[in-house]
Amino acid sequence: MKKYVYLFGKGMTDGNASMKELLGGKGANLAEMANLGLPVPAGFTITTECCVEYFKNEGKNPDGLAEQIAEALNAVEKHMGMIYGDKENPLLVSCRSGARSSMHGMMETVLNVGLSSATIPGLINRTNNERFVYDAYRRLIMMYSDVVMEKAENIEPADGQGIRKQLDAILEEYKESKGYAADTDLNVDDLKYLCDVFKKKIVEVLGKEFPDDAVAQLNGAIGAVFKSWNGKKAVSYRRIEGIPDDWGTAVNVQSMIFGNMGDSSATGVAFTRNPATGDNKFYGEWLVNAQGEDVVAGTRTPNPLNDETKNEQNKHLASMQEMLPEIYAELVGIRNALENHFRDMLDIEFTIQEKKLFMLQCRVGKRTGTAALTMAMYMLEEGRITEAEAIMRISPNQLDELLHPILDPAAEKAMAANKFVEGLPAGPGGAVGKIVFTSEDAVKCQEQKISCILVREETNPEDVEGMRAANGILTARGGMTSHAALVCRGWGKCCIVGAGALKINETAKTVIAPNGKEYKEGDIISLNGTRGYAYEGAVATIDASENPRFQKFMALLDKYRSLGVRANADTPADALQAAKFGAEGIGLFRTEHMFYGTGAEKPLFALRKMILSSTVEERVAAVNELFPFVKKDIKATLKAMAGKPVTIRFLDPPLHEFIPHTKEQQQELADSIGITLEDLQKRAEVLKESNPMMGHRGVRLGITYPEISAMQARAILESVVELREEGLYCPAEMMIPVVCDPNELKHQKAIISKVAEEVKAKYDVMDLDYMVGTMIEIPRAAIRAGYIAEEAEFFSFGTNDLTQMTFGFSRDDIGGFIGDYLRKSVLDADPFQTIDKDGVGWLIEHAVTEGRKTRKKLKAGICGEQGGEPKSVAFCHKVGLNYVSCSPFRVPIARLAAAQAAIMLGK
Amino acid sequence: MKKYVYLFGKGMTDGNASMKELLGGKGANLAEMANLGLPVPAGFTITTECCVEYFKNEGKNPDGLAEQIAEALNAVEKHMGMIYGDKENPLLVSCRSGARSSMHGMMETVLNVGLSSATIPGLINRTNNERFVYDAYRRLIMMYSDVVMEKAENIEPADGQGIRKQLDAILEEYKESKGYAADTDLNVDDLKYLCDVFKKKIVEVLGKEFPDDAVAQLNGAIGAVFKSWNGKKAVSYRRIEGIPDDWGTAVNVQSMIFGNMGDSSATGVAFTRNPATGDNKFYGEWLVNAQGEDVVAGTRTPNPLNDETKNEQNKHLASMQEMLPEIYAELVGIRNALENHFRDMLDIEFTIQEKKLFMLQCRVGKRTGTAALTMAMYMLEEGRITEAEAIMRISPNQLDELLHPILDPAAEKAMAANKFVEGLPAGPGGAVGKIVFTSEDAVKCQEQKISCILVREETNPEDVEGMRAANGILTARGGMTSHAALVCRGWGKCCIVGAGALKINETAKTVIAPNGKEYKEGDIISLNGTRGYAYEGAVATIDASENPRFQKFMALLDKYRSLGVRANADTPADALQAAKFGAEGIGLFRTEHMFYGTGAEKPLFALRKMILSSTVEERVAAVNELFPFVKKDIKATLKAMAGKPVTIRFLDPPLHEFIPHTKEQQQELADSIGITLEDLQKRAEVLKESNPMMGHRGVRLGITYPEISAMQARAILESVVELREEGLYCPAEMMIPVVCDPNELKHQKAIISKVAEEVKAKYDVMDLDYMVGTMIEIPRAAIRAGYIAEEAEFFSFGTNDLTQMTFGFSRDDIGGFIGDYLRKSVLDADPFQTIDKDGVGWLIEHAVTEGRKTRKKLKAGICGEQGGEPKSVAFCHKVGLNYVSCSPFRVPIARLAAAQAAIMLGK
Repeated sequence: MKKYVYLFGKGMTDGNASMKELLGGKGANLAEMANLGLPVPAGFTITTECCVEYFKNEGKNPDGLAEQIAEALNAVEKHMGMIYGDKENPLLVSCRSGARSSMHGMMETVLNVGLSSATIPGLINRTNNERFVYDAYRRLIMMYSDVVMEKAENIEPADGQGIRKQLDAILEEYKESKGYAADTDLNVDDLKYLCDVFKKKIVEVLGKEFPDDAVAQLNGAIGAVFKSWNGKKAVSYRRIEGIPDDWGTAVNVQSMIFGNMGDSSATGVAFTRNPATGDNKFYGEWLVNAQGEDVVAGTRTPNPLNDETKNEQNKHLASMQEMLPEIYAELVGIRNALENHFRDMLDIEFTIQEKKLFMLQCRVGKRTGTAALTMAMYMLEEGRITEAEAIMRISPNQLDELLHPILDPAAEKAMAANKFVEGLPAGPGGAVGKIVFTSEDAVKCQEQKISCILVREETNPEDVEGMRAANGILTARGGMTSHAALVCRGWGKCCIVGAGALKINETAKTVIAPNGKEYKEGDIISLNGTRGYAYEGAVATIDASENPRFQKFMALLDKYRSLGVRANADTPADALQAAKFGAEGIGLFRTEHMFYGTGAEKPLFALRKMILSSTVEERVAAVNELFPFVKKDIKATLKAMAGKPVTIRFLDPPLHEFIPHTKEQQQELADSIGITLEDLQKRAEVLKESNPMMGHRGVRLGITYPEISAMQARAILESVVELREEGLYCPAEMMIPVVCDPNELKHQKAIISKVAEEVKAKYDVMDLDYMVGTMIEIPRAAIRAGYIAEEAEFFSFGTNDLTQMTFGFSRDDIGGFIGDYLRKSVLDADPFQTIDKDGVGWLIEHAVTEGRKTRKKLKAGICGEQGGEPKSVAFCHKVGLNYVSCSPFRVPIARLAAAQAAIMLGK
Repeated sequence: MKKYVYLFGKGMTDGNASMKELLGGKGANLAEMANLGLPVPAGFTITTECCVEYFKNEGKNPDGLAEQIAEALNAVEKHMGMIYGDKENPLLVSCRSGARSSMHGMMETVLNVGLSSATIPGLINRTNNERFVYDAYRRLIMMYSDVVMEKAENIEPADGQGIRKQLDAILEEYKESKGYAADTDLNVDDLKYLCDVFKKKIVEVLGKEFPDDAVAQLNGAIGAVFKSWNGKKAVSYRRIEGIPDDWGTAVNVQSMIFGNMGDSSATGVAFTRNPATGDNKFYGEWLVNAQGEDVVAGTRTPNPLNDETKNEQNKHLASMQEMLPEIYAELVGIRNALENHFRDMLDIEFTIQEKKLFMLQCRVGKRTGTAALTMAMYMLEEGRITEAEAIMRISPNQLDELLHPILDPAAEKAMAANKFVEGLPAGPGGAVGKIVFTSEDAVKCQEQKISCILVREETNPEDVEGMRAANGILTARGGMTSHAALVCRGWGKCCIVGAGALKINETAKTVIAPNGKEYKEGDIISLNGTRGYAYEGAVATIDASENPRFQKFMALLDKYRSLGVRANADTPADALQAAKFGAEGIGLFRTEHMFYGTGAEKPLFALRKMILSSTVEERVAAVNELFPFVKKDIKATLKAMAGKPVTIRFLDPPLHEFIPHTKEQQQELADSIGITLEDLQKRAEVLKESNPMMGHRGVRLGITYPEISAMQARAILESVVELREEGLYCPAEMMIPVVCDPNELKHQKAIISKVAEEVKAKYDVMDLDYMVGTMIEIPRAAIRAGYIAEEAEFFSFGTNDLTQMTFGFSRDDIGGFIGDYLRKSVLDADPFQTIDKDGVGWLIEHAVTEGRKTRKKLKAGICGEQGGEPKSVAFCHKVGLNYVSCSPFRVPIARLAAAQAAIMLGK
């Protein structure tokens, strides 16, 4: 019989911290804490394997589970000296989810399980606290009906009003009728009355009785936790975080400890170091006479744990350090023991029941990018961790966060009068955007590439997609450990929570500031997520990579990585930016990009003339006109990167992209070529293509119009010679795009060689250094790589196009189906974001292998957008590419990903 | 030292017929004839290897060649008893090209080489025929200046008037001034005068003297033949015929024999059997007092060789059988000897010099498809060749010709009064089209898919592309062995030559019939190429596969081939046609094709409703409306093919293809859906794609709209059950298109399984036979084939799309560059016509191999348009596909190609 149930508790623990896959993170760490001798309430963990079998069996428990649970419960009862479902001395338990990887608030928890008409009198008798018992009972009824009876049964509330909302409304109405301000004002009779009303409502709405039986409750709760693994929000979260669907969750059944047994009880969460800054200071929040859900739910602003946790919002509230100094000292001792043991910053949950401290959970704490960097470098300095460990401690997303903008302090000071509210600094950095009030609107803004700030009373797990889409988040409720705060910290997204002074009307889509000013949807505001300040209007932003440890950390990366990192840059300015971020060269300079945007009218005009030429003579004239512009840009870029290689891609895009659209521009162009407007329009018509992505572009232009290739070769080679005369060595790599056959390269190389001879003659030089290589972006090029390497001195994988052709997915058109593909698990990830290892990656590996059979020292890199995506970088390291090339801002991330890949996979 | 020069001649021959690669076809066969003891004038062949080296050396002869030529010439001199360049007894030679594969008229020949002021007197003395010598001299001057001094030097005539045309004009003018009708009217003085004028003109136009030195002449002529290998027309011909550029040509230097030494001399060409019908009758044409070029050039209508060669056009001219019975008898003897030796129909050239017969050439003769079939089956019956040889004797193109239309005899009879001219029946079949007068116009018509008939005074090698493009060819001049006749016979194209009664004005673009009626460009005419009749207007056509030997031959093929042949058919009518041509099933039934064309308004309307639905409800309603139409077509097709497998492809094309374009249609559609016109247009706008070929199509539609897949599955499965109830077994294969990942198939199979259960329940049946497979048309599908085969029961390679994605070539857009790619030899062939073995073929082979590792009995076929292209069929055989599927008319060709592949490569 397979072991599905693992005990934990002092002296009776089956598991340990290394068993996360089987026991989930929470279960494994509970076991580890118990092994360390910390005060963990006894309980047991039902394994993730059991969850997987549960789904395989279409929702039936595997054989033997019931017996194992009964046995474990028996052990826990003995340990706690209480009996589950007993009339005299009843044990209550919590049922919590716990996957391998933390999924904050995405799955379900049920507390106080085991309370029924049979056990209530005994518990009242034992606790001598009738109010506490009925408060626990009404909580159980509310949670259980929601989680077990409704959600787990996949009941869709008819009007969107789930049972929980209906019970909440009854509670609020009742409090109002009685004139109560807080839940704590409810007395025993109130609670008894409410429990009865709740139970009737449940029958009315769900057509079933709330179970008045401890065993039925426990089984229901365990099943509901399993089912919550496939709940809508959990699935959506896994999709975003890339967590596999087949991991399953464990269920932790643990003896209940009550933080709500009066003023000598409390509950809290804490981080062993500051999760926002990384400072080595114990940091937490707590609430007296409360259960854990009260702290996390964000419905009450919690008290600070200690002096170091005090801030503008909570400094008037009593800290635990002040109120319960002895217990606080015990907690500090536990904090130190845990940090020494785990060698990392931990996020802990504790409960105090009538002055006795219990540890309910510990896990590696989420942190901001700044904090991650600071902690890693501190711990490295302290000798606590190795260099490689320090590198592994910062995720690429956290590093990305450091590169994100913050509000410019000067601009912020100047606009101080615009500050309309303060809240808790829950997510770092700065954000500027239009106000939106719903997750849907945030997603719409993102689709339209409009920056937005999501303003909400509070966020909940249903909001994750909108939170992801928004540039910043501002909530009126919640603390530093509220849903919004945890999620944003994980993503490094700018976020302010608990700005309670705001009056938000989500229906009218307005928010009223403390000064009475009203902001509407679409108004622009700015957030400083590092300080918790919100401003009316747009505050200028600057970049945040000035952390003093940043450069040290980056240098460390370069020591460990073997993969080169270059940047894609199309202008001298971009090239300088890239060099600043540590790029070791330019992996992709796109000749045609100088023609985009404003201020490029003259070269664009010449380009258009070239495109619409219909004879070689016309074309040569236009090409000659274009030459000085092309040369100027190329030369400046080579100069900016002097000493480092620059890969210049020959003209690539479908020509029709450059055809002028207005009649005036067309007329002007026609005049300059000396043809009529009608003729020009006819020529333009001919250039239109059904599938331009697979049309007359790249090397195909060079084959039909050799003069265009010659012009580009001349611009590059003359620049190289002239810079050499200035004493600068500029290794230029000419890259031919859209190649599918070695003959194309042969043809272009012949043109380049001829130009090279002409340039040598013109400048009277003997030699001329340059390389000619190719993009591998057409499947056939990857297939024929062994032959192409006979001609090409380097390969650069153009994974954007390669992905398009390999999948037959037009990047511009996948909107119609990619959502369904991800939702229906047809694909694991959008292949334009992460290299598809199975198809595109297979071609890359094949091409590198075959190419190097032909040319042993073939240089190979990647210049598609995935070049800055960590998983793709790891893949590039694995298949032996020489470098990745990505946008300048992604260069540090690529350096980190490359170092981590080298550590994980070997150099 | 490499041997570059091979002698031939009685008792001194170095080569034989098996050495075609080295000696070219002509050289090898001259050697073989000499070995057989036939009267071959002595000479030598310079090898194709020498030609290849000549081009490698940039136009320089390889070392040692001069010495080997001198030695060989010496041997020939001894054999002939004459000395090259000698004053007393000069030997003259011809220099002719001769590639491995015959390239009629595409390369150059120079005759009478060796005549100079030094040798002329001696030759006059020896022949006692001054007129003959000067006639030979003026021919040499005309040919040499054209071929050696102009073309081989790549001199582009300034006004398009080459030296040859200018000399021709002088000749014509002179004859007119003298009142001469024919060249034979020129006397010695005329010829002497003309030679002088020609030589002056040459200096004037080309700036160089005609060489008055025998050795210089020989070297020049040899070099010119080499160079003609890379002449424009030769390159263009090779491109069309698929002959590799690196074969090179041999040069045959042969002692001159003169058919123009008066009335006891003659020259002729003959076929050992009738090349048009295949009848076992000696067939040829000859001219008294002429050189070979006169027969082939088509400038004189030649005499019939014998009674059997007589026809309406030449029956008044004397046959050789009548005029020179003894020599004719000798020729018949040679004919029999050659046929016995070569076991095939031969094309021979002979010359009679003063009553002595010499063989100048023999080669396997070109023939019509009808002739090829008749000869092969005859020779098989005679026991001369084996079944396999008979199969190899007919090229797929020749078979194609048999399948091409002929004029419907009844219609032709009814329109007899429309006949406006008769000519020689040079190319088989019937053709109807608009008159064009230039090759360029013919090409334009083809591009616009307009049928055309190319009408010309005579054709020349510059016209090949236009001849290829035209549906039929009609010329006023030339015989059955003229350029037009030879080329058209090779292609199986309808052609009439020698319709001398026509007055063609190529400048005015008019043609006047004998009855005075004038036809202009664009007028429609019809040709019967089998009889040589041309008609005004369009005569109905029918198909010509009724040859009595056709069915016998086709049955023979099926005995030899192992590759299955299916057809692509989209309607029950197509399916019946396909079955008639021997299709063993339907390899591709495209559901959406029922919506194209007229008479399909109702289902098209329902389809459009489905496409423009924006909710599941709307879509389900439209799908239900569509269902009966889809089921009706599918059921009828399955019934038509009962007992044979039918592969039904699920809906594939980008949806926007079906959106109505007119406002009326849009309004009607909007009304029927119950939305406004604006809404409809908005929905249509959303469906537009940048690259529809890589957009929302194929299985992607099935993933986003499962109800569409379900409807198709239901239509198929209900049809299968209902037909089974009629006692018909209809194996249906459901094919999911545009698949790139096994998960897509999994998803669709789940839908199909569910429908299958519903259908079983509806009809109360226990089992339901069907297969589910996939198109492999996306590179990733080929790469992941091993995994896809876990889900797919069969693969069908969609090589149209696979070629698009593998090359990144949009089939609709390659017009802009494919021409340059072929002209500049970047690609050998258009990959949409012949499977690209290196890229697309590599993927196919990979997919078959990987697929069969997973599923040993995986059925694999091809349904792209290359499925009926012989080289591609051979490839499919080689990589082990189970079947090819092509358009019904290509089925017999695929059967032939499959049989030939099995014979060549083994079953």
